[in-house]
Amino acid sequence: MFKLEKVLAQIESLNEEAMAGAQARLDDLAKPQGSLGVMEAIAKKIAGITGRAVPKISQKTCILMAGDHGVMEEGFNAYPQAVTAQMVQNFLNGGAAMNVFSRHVGAELLVVDIGVAADFADHPLLMKKKVAYGTLNISNGPAMTVEQALKAIETGFEVAEGCLARGSDLLGLGEMGIGNTTPSTALLAVFSGTPLAEITGRGTGASDELLKLKIKAIEKALAVNNPAADEPLAALAKVGGLEIAGLVGVILAGAANRVPIVLDGFISGAAALVASALNPRVKDYLLASHLSDEPGHKKMLELIGVRPILFMDMRLGEGTGAALAMNIIEVSVKILRDMATFSAAA
Amino acid sequence: MFKLEKVLAQIESLNEEAMAGAQARLDDLAKPQGSLGVMEAIAKKIAGITGRAVPKISQKTCILMAGDHGVMEEGFNAYPQAVTAQMVQNFLNGGAAMNVFSRHVGAELLVVDIGVAADFADHPLLMKKKVAYGTLNISNGPAMTVEQALKAIETGFEVAEGCLARGSDLLGLGEMGIGNTTPSTALLAVFSGTPLAEITGRGTGASDELLKLKIKAIEKALAVNNPAADEPLAALAKVGGLEIAGLVGVILAGAANRVPIVLDGFISGAAALVASALNPRVKDYLLASHLSDEPGHKKMLELIGVRPILFMDMRLGEGTGAALAMNIIEVSVKILRDMATFSAAA
Repeated sequence: MFKLEKVLAQIESLNEEAMAGAQARLDDLAKPQGSLGVMEAIAKKIAGITGRAVPKISQKTCILMAGDHGVMEEGFNAYPQAVTAQMVQNFLNGGAAMNVFSRHVGAELLVVDIGVAADFADHPLLMKKKVAYGTLNISNGPAMTVEQALKAIETGFEVAEGCLARGSDLLGLGEMGIGNTTPSTALLAVFSGTPLAEITGRGTGASDELLKLKIKAIEKALAVNNPAADEPLAALAKVGGLEIAGLVGVILAGAANRVPIVLDGFISGAAALVASALNPRVKDYLLASHLSDEPGHKKMLELIGVRPILFMDMRLGEGTGAALAMNIIEVSVKILRDMATFSAAA
Repeated sequence: MFKLEKVLAQIESLNEEAMAGAQARLDDLAKPQGSLGVMEAIAKKIAGITGRAVPKISQKTCILMAGDHGVMEEGFNAYPQAVTAQMVQNFLNGGAAMNVFSRHVGAELLVVDIGVAADFADHPLLMKKKVAYGTLNISNGPAMTVEQALKAIETGFEVAEGCLARGSDLLGLGEMGIGNTTPSTALLAVFSGTPLAEITGRGTGASDELLKLKIKAIEKALAVNNPAADEPLAALAKVGGLEIAGLVGVILAGAANRVPIVLDGFISGAAALVASALNPRVKDYLLASHLSDEPGHKKMLELIGVRPILFMDMRLGEGTGAALAMNIIEVSVKILRDMATFSAAA
């Protein structure tokens, strides 16, 4: 627990002075005050995160964590579990949506096997960090042990800190894990108390019948495991997932190192819920990319206190929304640096 | 009128075969069907526009039309008219928001003086196409003659066709003209019939008092000129603006040449209303970038029948929203070309 406690203790408040400096500069730029709306708020937030009134984004990195889910045994998913490993292979081959998106926006893409139920050959893009061959079935008991959850979180630290050491200054979250809207919904239920019928969605495409089975599986998971909002680490181990735990680690490491973190959709949002429950200051370091088609996502982002930039009915995950938003976040920061000011013109 | 009629007659329906081909490919890509939401709709629409099932975007160009407005005499604007010319100079110097945005997304930026009440020195980025030194005060009579409106539209044709000849295959709209939310609101009132109190906004920052004066000025403009929705060219001349007319020309030329057009905010939307009234098929060639902070913009986009991608409370204009969206549109098209397919994997 030592490493986690240390990282949690490292997370500081935003730098108010840098934010004031950014605001003064935003108001001096050659445009009506406030006319760039949310982009100005993003620029100011990143000033507060980085502690620099005129921050710079030099290296965008997306960290895609992949893991499998024992709850797939319940048989409600539109895709078989083997698709997780196939998609990891697709990422390594460069043909997935996330490859296209990250190339397009100039972001580095790292793929991390943190819990896929299959083995992979070595590949320069793949980080082999398997904690387990998938989680256990949460409808019957805990997804993983607390030790495994901690190990997955620490894997997130290690991957994120490696990126930061190589110069990444904007981290995007991504994930792949057939069935992972199920643990994410369970975690949202824990932290929001919202009835499952309101927040359970079709994931990548479940039918009405499968949706009912999915709700039943989550109900069982909550009843059997009894996760509690004030015990976030235990809740993560009980009803979470390995890739979710890995992303919790990435978020915490980013916040501890004053680097902005861009959420993707529903699964990365579940990781953000856990991370924010571990330390509420985490919220200040998060940027929401898009509002996904998952019915619980809006509630989730409200709980975290972040506002999405894009509304495009996306529900793919992988980090695709994060990649798109990173491009907009980057230009939001550039306006501080590259625009003419009224005072310089005078 | 000959050139306008010719261009209007040239605008064809979307290519259904190309759209069906794009849809088949979208459904074959290595992702759950429909999971990229609006991006898939964009890709399919561009297939229909270009007539190619797998289209390609090679050269993005933003056309920024600048003009002044006689209605500024009514004294309700937060900025003086001279700011239009100052901002044109700022675009040429590279320090405006739109310079930062267009550089960031890799779009060419063309600045067109179609009606600024000032003269400019020659500059490689500036196209000198002045139709008049601003419009007349619409509260007292027509903004311009029908001949001037036609000349401005034809200027739009000329500029757009020049871009297309040089290889542009995605056109973004931008504008600069202190006071130009006023004619845009007047045009929206003409085409929507919505009460002015619901659709008149603060532009770049008018106070409550100035907002009342603005509404009064538009009421007078509508009463004095009596513009009608079924006479779009006359309505444009009566209560429009030179940069709006220029953008009407860009939109029509884009549609006639099967090139997608990306709207910016409220002013380019007013141009789209006029263009769509001249030929309803125009709507098929338009993509909305963002929902601006202007209160009438939502109604405007509903009338045009396009759905915005970004919701960021922006109200700057210049083409900034269009530039951001062009980046997302570009990757929407790339997914068709660059992603792996299930059929190739099988």
